Order: sequence, then C-alpha cells, then structure tokens
Amino acid sequence: MPDRIAPARLCGFITLALQRLGLPPADAAIVAGLMTEAEAQGSDGHGAIRLAPYARRIREGGYNLRPDIRVIQERPAMALLDGDNGFGHLVMHKAAQLAIDKARTCGVGWVGARLSNHAGPASLYARMPLAHDMVGLYFAVGNANHLPPWGGLDMLLSTNPVAVAVPAGEEPPVVLDMATTVAAYGKVKAKAQRGEQMPVGWMIDRLGQPLTDPKRADEGFLMPIGGYKGYGLALVVGLLAGTLNGAAMGREVLDFNKDFRSTTNTGQAILAIDPAAIGDVAAFKTRVDTVIREMRGSERMPGVDRIWLPGEQSHLRRQQSEREGLALPPALLAQLDTVARELDIPTLQSA
Amino acid sequence: MPDRIAPARLCGFITLALQRLGLPPADAAIVAGLMTEAEAQGSDGHGAIRLAPYARRIREGGYNLRPDIRVIQERPAMALLDGDNGFGHLVMHKAAQLAIDKARTCGVGWVGARLSNHAGPASLYARMPLAHDMVGLYFAVGNANHLPPWGGLDMLLSTNPVAVAVPAGEEPPVVLDMATTVAAYGKVKAKAQRGEQMPVGWMIDRLGQPLTDPKRADEGFLMPIGGYKGYGLALVVGLLAGTLNGAAMGREVLDFNKDFRSTTNTGQAILAIDPAAIGDVAAFKTRVDTVIREMRGSERMPGVDRIWLPGEQSHLRRQQSEREGLALPPALLAQLDTVARELDIPTLQSA
Repeated sequence: MPDRIAPARLCGFITLALQRLGLPPADAAIVAGLMTEAEAQGSDGHGAIRLAPYARRIREGGYNLRPDIRVIQERPAMALLDGDNGFGHLVMHKAAQLAIDKARTCGVGWVGARLSNHAGPASLYARMPLAHDMVGLYFAVGNANHLPPWGGLDMLLSTNPVAVAVPAGEEPPVVLDMATTVAAYGKVKAKAQRGEQMPVGWMIDRLGQPLTDPKRADEGFLMPIGGYKGYGLALVVGLLAGTLNGAAMGREVLDFNKDFRSTTNTGQAILAIDPAAIGDVAAFKTRVDTVIREMRGSERMPGVDRIWLPGEQSHLRRQQSEREGLALPPALLAQLDTVARELDIPTLQSA
Repeated sequence: MPDRIAPARLCGFITLALQRLGLPPADAAIVAGLMTEAEAQGSDGHGAIRLAPYARRIREGGYNLRPDIRVIQERPAMALLDGDNGFGHLVMHKAAQLAIDKARTCGVGWVGARLSNHAGPASLYARMPLAHDMVGLYFAVGNANHLPPWGGLDMLLSTNPVAVAVPAGEEPPVVLDMATTVAAYGKVKAKAQRGEQMPVGWMIDRLGQPLTDPKRADEGFLMPIGGYKGYGLALVVGLLAGTLNGAAMGREVLDFNKDFRSTTNTGQAILAIDPAAIGDVAAFKTRVDTVIREMRGSERMPGVDRIWLPGEQSHLRRQQSEREGLALPPALLAQLDTVARELDIPTLQSA
C-alpha cells in the first residue's frame, strides 16, 4: 500500500510538470488545480492519469500553450469563447466565470466554446456556480466517438456527458455527472484487465446482440442508456455543445487517444442559473434539503444499505481526500514517475 | 376503420367542449390547438385522450378557469410565472413566448412556472422557439410519481421529461422528447390489455428483480434509463422544473389520475437559446443538416431499414395527419362522444 499523498502535493507536482512542459505558471496552476480536484473527488479517469497523455499532446504540438482565449460574440446572457486550442480546463474555467457573471445580472448565463480541448470531468464545471449559490449545467462533446446512431454501425457519437449541480442548504449539493452510455469505456477496460465478463446491457455487437466479453470490445459498441433515448441524448448534447458553437461533432470528432497532434476543436457549454433572480435563495436551498432527505429516507430494497444522492459519494470522497490524502494506485504512481524523469523534476513521492 | 378526422375539426370540437366547460374562448382555442398538435404528432397519450380527465378536473373544481397567469419575479434573461392553477398549456404557452422574447435580446431566456398544471407532451413547448430559429429546452415535473430513488421502495419521483429542439436547415428539426424511464406507463398498460409480457428491463419488483407480467405492474416500479443515471436525471429535472420554482416535487406531487380536486402545483421550465447571438444562423442550421445526414447515412445493422433522428417520426406523422387526417381509435371516439353528450354539443363525427 503506497503512502497517501496530500492533494496539495499532487497539485504542486502537476503544476511544476506543466510549467516544464511550457505552460505559463498561472495557467499550469489552474489546470493542475482542476486535475487534482478531479482526482480528489474520485473521477480517476480524468485526474492525474491524464498528465502523461497531456504531456504527449504538448510535445507533439497538439496544444497552443499561449492561447488567446477570448469572447468572439456576446449578448447580455450569452457568449461564445474561442479557446484558441488551449487547455480545455483554462477555456471552461473562463467560461464558467463568465456564465456566473452573466447570471448575476441577467438571471441566467450561457457560455459556449469552440477550439477548446478535453477539460476533465463535467462535474468540475457544473459545480463552479455552486460557490455563488447558483445552479450549473454543463454539456460537452467527448473526445472520441464510441457509439453509432441507434440501429447503425458507424461510430459517430461520443458519450457526450451532461452535468447538473444544484446547491443545497445543510446537505451536500446534488451533482449529477453522467455519460450517455450505460457503462464508461474505462469500466470495460477494467473488466478486461481483471479477466471478468461484462453484464448484459453494457455493449452490443455489430448484429445488435449482447456483447459480454470485454476482450472483444473492439467488435461492438457501448450501449446508450435507455437504447434510442441515450442515442438521442448524446446527439442533442453534441448539437448544444459542439454544433451550436462551431466545434467538432459527428465525423469531425477525432480520437484524442490516438491522434496527439491535430486540433481537436472540442466544444463545451455551461449554463449558470441564479435562484436569487426568482426568489429567496435560502428558502430554495431548504427546499432542496427537503427533497434530498425524502430520497435518502425512502424505504429500501432488501440488501440496500443506503440510498445515495447524485454527487454524494464524490462529496464524501473529496472530504476523505482532504483528510487522509489520495491513495494513488501503483501503476499511476509509476506513470507519474516516468513523467518526472522525462521532465527532470522530483518525483511525486520524493518532492 | 373509422373515418379520418381533419385536425382542424378535432381542434374545433375540443375548443367548443372547453368553452362549454367554462374556459374563455381564447383560452379554449389555445389549449385545443396544443392538444390537437399533440394528437397530430402521434403523442396520443397527451392528445384528445386527455379531454375527459381535464373535463372531470374542471367539474371537480381542480382548475382555476380564470387564472391570472403573471410574472412574479424577473431579470433580463429569467422569469418566474405564477400559473394561478390555470391550464398548463396556457401557462407554458406564455412561458415559451416570454423565453423567446428574452432570448432575442439577451441570447438566452429561462422561464419557470409554479402553480401550473399538466401541459401535454414536452416537445410542444421545446418546439416553440423553432419558429424563431431558436433552440428550445423544456423540463417538467410529471403529474404522478412512478419511481423510487435508486435502491428505494417509496415512489418519490415522476418520469420527469426533458425535451430539446434544435432547428435545422433543409432537414426537419431534431426534437428529443424523453421521459427518464425505459418505458412509459402507458406502454405497460397497453401490454396488459393485449395480454403480452413485458421485456426484461421495463420494470423491477420490490426485490429489485425483473418484473415482466404487466398485470403485476402495481407490485413494482418503472426502471429509470441507465439505472441510477435515470434516477439522477429524474431528480435533477425535478429540482430544475419543480423545486427551483417553488412547485411540487417529491412527496408533494399528487397523482392527477386519482385526485381531480386538489391543486397540483405543477412546475415546468423552458429555456430558449438564440443561435443568432453567437453566429450566423444559416451556417448553424447547415451544420445541423450535416450532422443529421451523417447519422442517417451510417451503415446499418442487419435488419435495420432506416436510422431515425429524434423527432423525425413525429415530423412525418404531423405531415400525414395534415394530409390524411387523424385516425382516432374507436375507444377514443367513444370517449369523446360521451364528453359531447355530457356537454350537449355535437359529436366529433357529426360536427
């Protein structure tokens, strides 16, 4: 069991690595902070594990390290950002701040982005309005296509995620962060590594039959949630986050795990809603508490210990990470050590 | 096979019926127009079949027939409507117009409602911004709870629907209208009537086991799409459409098929997004056309004749209804005849 690592230490390590890779210090700190937050809340597929592929993309020229992230069109409650091919974290961090500002004056604020990049877990950005007692919604086009339209065979859609964050009073906020497929691709890979079969419903093969052998994952597709409903959801999220902003969608989406050089033209959008615009915020948050407690207090099925609210497990995980530090798996630590060696910086555990 | 009925004739019949029931003529015409539109697009669970239960609710005093539907709080891009317990169609018709006006000046407009009522299919309202080349999103709290929180047994959530409508150029618009459960309750009832079994995945029993006998539907629950994901989606839609507006959510939601007298305090919300705020609208609609054609043009699974876009079947159905008239099932015609007799107005087919 490796030592647990304080989030601040991981953040410092990633900041230094990104600086060595050429990011300006302030930008490196923002990206590292959000990657650490992803790790701390248990979004491990979007946390420190991304440092090595980000580094590779930087080296291969896939990023603009001095982006001019700017508003190119604007109305009082809406804006379009050009991310200038910078880190997605920087683009969406700016987008969220702008959406919050607009919501404060207009009630709601919608900010979309083109020429952005992978920005980590959707919940990071949906949660940003929470600090201002606002509701946040986030939509993104994923960075690799994993599903065909319903009944089709061509992989034209990503698992385009949606996240919604709603502030509560005494309770943790409700934070839903969901891809539009039953299982994430990372879960399929994990099953393959452990030599386990997948449950029926995760994937189908090219004949539409259930695919349960994760080693044959290349022969099939992830199943959208609710079948054609999940296909429809992935499509409209892509239209809102990609097509509306002039960002990549459908065949234009490139697989960022295979191509580290081309501009991804990733599209994302964020909506901030200010409950203060239409009522008393404290009363709203109390009503949210009531709903949360009703759900949690429901009679349970046999064998169910606890009813969880969306985002509650991540909330507990964040608290645990702060209290006890992060338990990074050995394979990830080894990967980070490799990055450290390549960049000639102290390793995470020696730093 | 009964004669097909022109949509305008159905609309006239419903208008007259609602007037006889006490609605002002202008309000009766709006509600009838939207109910007819629901019927014409194939949303048959929300069309003419609702006239009888609406009539019963009017007679039992459940509606305010002279509502003062008004903005009670407002910012430039946001408003809260008090529906004053009027017909939901009237409340959301007004909400959509206001959201469109706000989007025209601010880029986006969000309008929520409290003290509204059942308003028919979600797509009706998400589609309203389309006529202004805008995107529409609609969220609603359903009027009866049909699912428990994930792992629970208490029915605390409705199949809270989401609808998203995106304008296209030469293609029909993309219109997604989905409940957050795998199957609608109406489909379960239809299976029971036909004496058929349900597929695994539609419902579970109180032990969490698949329930396939539709005659035992009362012993179980509708399955949310993607399991816990659909639960999360139903919850956040309810928070956005209900709790945010001070409308009913959770235990406060009453079953409008059982209680025809109490105020439902239904909550809904609509978001209009103006693509003109951030770019050229024609170029956007051309990009949407491209995405639509990519999906439709995908290689297909064996046995799949055609790949559908969300809303495409409803679009064709609307065209067919205009061209050939509506084919109302005999049971529905009989129900409408009963309403006509009770109100002493000409029956639909004799009118």
